[in-house]
Amino acid sequence: MNIGILGTGMVGQIVSGALASKGHTVMIGTRDVQKSLANAEKSPMGMPGFGTWHKDNQHIKVGTFAEAATFGELLVNATSGLKSLEALTTAGADNLGSKVLIDIANELDFSKGMPPKSLANDTRSLGEDIQAAFPNLKVVKTLNTMNAYVMVNPALVDNGNSTVFVNGNDAGAKTTVTNILKSFGWQDIMDLGDITASRSVEMLLPIWLKAWGAIGNTPFNFKIAR
Amino acid sequence: MNIGILGTGMVGQIVSGALASKGHTVMIGTRDVQKSLANAEKSPMGMPGFGTWHKDNQHIKVGTFAEAATFGELLVNATSGLKSLEALTTAGADNLGSKVLIDIANELDFSKGMPPKSLANDTRSLGEDIQAAFPNLKVVKTLNTMNAYVMVNPALVDNGNSTVFVNGNDAGAKTTVTNILKSFGWQDIMDLGDITASRSVEMLLPIWLKAWGAIGNTPFNFKIAR
Repeated sequence: MNIGILGTGMVGQIVSGALASKGHTVMIGTRDVQKSLANAEKSPMGMPGFGTWHKDNQHIKVGTFAEAATFGELLVNATSGLKSLEALTTAGADNLGSKVLIDIANELDFSKGMPPKSLANDTRSLGEDIQAAFPNLKVVKTLNTMNAYVMVNPALVDNGNSTVFVNGNDAGAKTTVTNILKSFGWQDIMDLGDITASRSVEMLLPIWLKAWGAIGNTPFNFKIAR
Repeated sequence: MNIGILGTGMVGQIVSGALASKGHTVMIGTRDVQKSLANAEKSPMGMPGFGTWHKDNQHIKVGTFAEAATFGELLVNATSGLKSLEALTTAGADNLGSKVLIDIANELDFSKGMPPKSLANDTRSLGEDIQAAFPNLKVVKTLNTMNAYVMVNPALVDNGNSTVFVNGNDAGAKTTVTNILKSFGWQDIMDLGDITASRSVEMLLPIWLKAWGAIGNTPFNFKIAR
């Protein structure tokens, strides 16, 4: 399937590579193609600059946000949560159409240093805000509760024995996304209901950050044990 | 050890029974002793009214908030989160002294019906508010992320293979609380740091409620899989 991914950071790089390896044709969308391709600066997380990464991943197409939105039959929001609505607006409502959008983003404010502050709470969420701003889109929130390497390779954590959450208003869209999750190896896929459940998964980021502090760089993930 | 528990609801009943069964002497504190002992009305969760419960649990002492705070060498806040500061104020700062207080409470607003709205966010927390209001207390936040039956019997979930979180400013207090958790059978006890980590565990309530909706009444709990 043709998949358009918005965002050139760690999540965009790793998810696009994984989707391409499953046989999908992937275009990454960015605000400024030339600037992104020229970026050779490592991220604070140690990820290569997008330009450096793309030299080794030339099978991934690169375009503007609008081009990636047009290209994809399925779309992925892998932008920084604080910039997601702006990126989607730039992509253009007509180009987004009524496609399925996987929303992986979290609203983390890094402006006061580490650890970032989560803006999540139980009154609204980014997933809902995206759905409200683009009512034709079929937004499915998933994968925002873990490290990018674990997103596409759940076997990294306890032989795959952890949980990925999905939520969204459209049952067919959730089935489409669930099939992609299964292709990554996910077995425990928990449907939390409609898009308002985005609040609950976006609220997991603070404890993810605390657990990261407690555990270190060992891959980990939430499991709903029962 | 003498333990004072504030709160006569489901958590207070189950935790006090479990602590007594481990050999502790327990006093439950309540706003109005006579009214609590006369309460024969089942809770919405199906728990017996406190008076009915106490007829079968007369080894648990009952007193005012102030009497329970005075009695306990260790204290437990099992009140409703929206009423916790008021209950602790009624208990009296002098009676609370510099004791260890296990804070299990969550700020859930049931006034708009079910599911309740969590007030948790990443800017402050109940755990911190209690610590700030009673700076001599040694507040340890724990056990607020699960059903009361699981709190005292982790073997109910996946043979005990799930996680309990602790946080607080005083290392000795965390050791005291960790030993009580171990006496309940907890093995995976994750120290998330100082009392500001209460934000992260209080923010788990919305997904706990969503997971409850997805799973039903089967016991479950969070596990940090790694």
